[in-house]
Amino acid sequence: MMKGKIFVIGLGPGDPGNMTVRAYQAIESCQVLVGYTVYIEQVRELSQGKEIIKKGMGQEVERGKIALEKALEGNTVGVVCSGDAGVYGMAGLILELLKDHGEREQISCEVIPGITSALSCSSLLGAPIVEDFCTISLSDYMTPWERIMTRLENACAGDFTIALYNPRSLARPEYLHKAMDVVKKYRHGDTPVGIVRNAYREDQSIVITKLTDFDPESVDMFCTVIIGNSKTYVAHGRMITSRGYQL
Amino acid sequence: MMKGKIFVIGLGPGDPGNMTVRAYQAIESCQVLVGYTVYIEQVRELSQGKEIIKKGMGQEVERGKIALEKALEGNTVGVVCSGDAGVYGMAGLILELLKDHGEREQISCEVIPGITSALSCSSLLGAPIVEDFCTISLSDYMTPWERIMTRLENACAGDFTIALYNPRSLARPEYLHKAMDVVKKYRHGDTPVGIVRNAYREDQSIVITKLTDFDPESVDMFCTVIIGNSKTYVAHGRMITSRGYQL
Repeated sequence: MMKGKIFVIGLGPGDPGNMTVRAYQAIESCQVLVGYTVYIEQVRELSQGKEIIKKGMGQEVERGKIALEKALEGNTVGVVCSGDAGVYGMAGLILELLKDHGEREQISCEVIPGITSALSCSSLLGAPIVEDFCTISLSDYMTPWERIMTRLENACAGDFTIALYNPRSLARPEYLHKAMDVVKKYRHGDTPVGIVRNAYREDQSIVITKLTDFDPESVDMFCTVIIGNSKTYVAHGRMITSRGYQL
Repeated sequence: MMKGKIFVIGLGPGDPGNMTVRAYQAIESCQVLVGYTVYIEQVRELSQGKEIIKKGMGQEVERGKIALEKALEGNTVGVVCSGDAGVYGMAGLILELLKDHGEREQISCEVIPGITSALSCSSLLGAPIVEDFCTISLSDYMTPWERIMTRLENACAGDFTIALYNPRSLARPEYLHKAMDVVKKYRHGDTPVGIVRNAYREDQSIVITKLTDFDPESVDMFCTVIIGNSKTYVAHGRMITSRGYQL
């Protein structure tokens, strides 16, 4: 008999409409919700009567440990993440904490997928990732910068459409500049670049530009940057990667 | 004044729970639904009273043209896709057809994102794509095989976790063998490989094995294959890519 359950729940981009039915159902079944302050706010209307544990950015491990404790007390616990629970989300950390926990067999864990930023931003830009694509986070909080740059080099060489997550923050304002210098070695200046800020939120903005005109200074931590591949073009304000259909 | 509207709708993996609220709302608002036979079946309960246009595999362009025609007749048309509308989905084709259409200003088009296979399968395997990942389709229906292999080489060199879409079909039974031969040049034999067949459907199966033991013959067109990177391991039946948290 399990003592408790943890749902790691992907909330999608931030609006209620882009949440899945399972995400709603999982939240409803929880006695406890744990998450980064902003994501907890996002589901405030669903959180009435539940114990709410908010934590700031960078406190992922604390959040994870509290979720395990609360589950061992017999609760159903929802760990809420923006986007998908598994893409730069809490699913990995929760499973890693569980793996090493003496009472792990007392806790069941289910990962509820969600709309990750590459998908939500692409839907607003047009269809830029309709062929092979990759995601790269420019945050070196967990990954050495050299490793990130190697990934970016290979993504460019392989002609992947690239979704840059965490493209810029106050703590590392110059990383996006360096990253785009790498991209410029491989892709021509007319390559379309899409910048979506706060996708599906109140102050959403969508900009489509080209590699030569792209200004990293226009990007902040609320943005996702999508860089086209050799088959990406812009038509009537939409960013489209051609798959080569005979029309 | 627009004549009609096209929603390109990602249905997610196939169960009602993994659809978003917006996908339901968009389908509800449609007079006409267009799609591959299997995906239309998937939303049969939502399709009452609507005109249904089913087409077989490979008839994407026909489906797209019919959607435009029906929209120009004044309808709201839903083009349904499995997974995400933009990841190997119909969003690109619809926007390409619209771009060249003389009456394109008469039709509005909205892309509704959905849970793509990399996300749904990962949620069942554990957390394999919690770091940078890429998707590669092994179908050479639209993309030359050499281009696919170059992508795969670069994905391996860049140490991306890799989600293989369309890994195998009757028409190209040997492609997955060739692809895994490439992967073996870069990744050690213990690298975890996850195979998910019919994710979130009745006959779902989940297998986690390692690169040396992986048998391409066990894979068919209903599978997605997820290949770990250098930081992926298996613990208690879950495939986890470590992000390096200090626990």
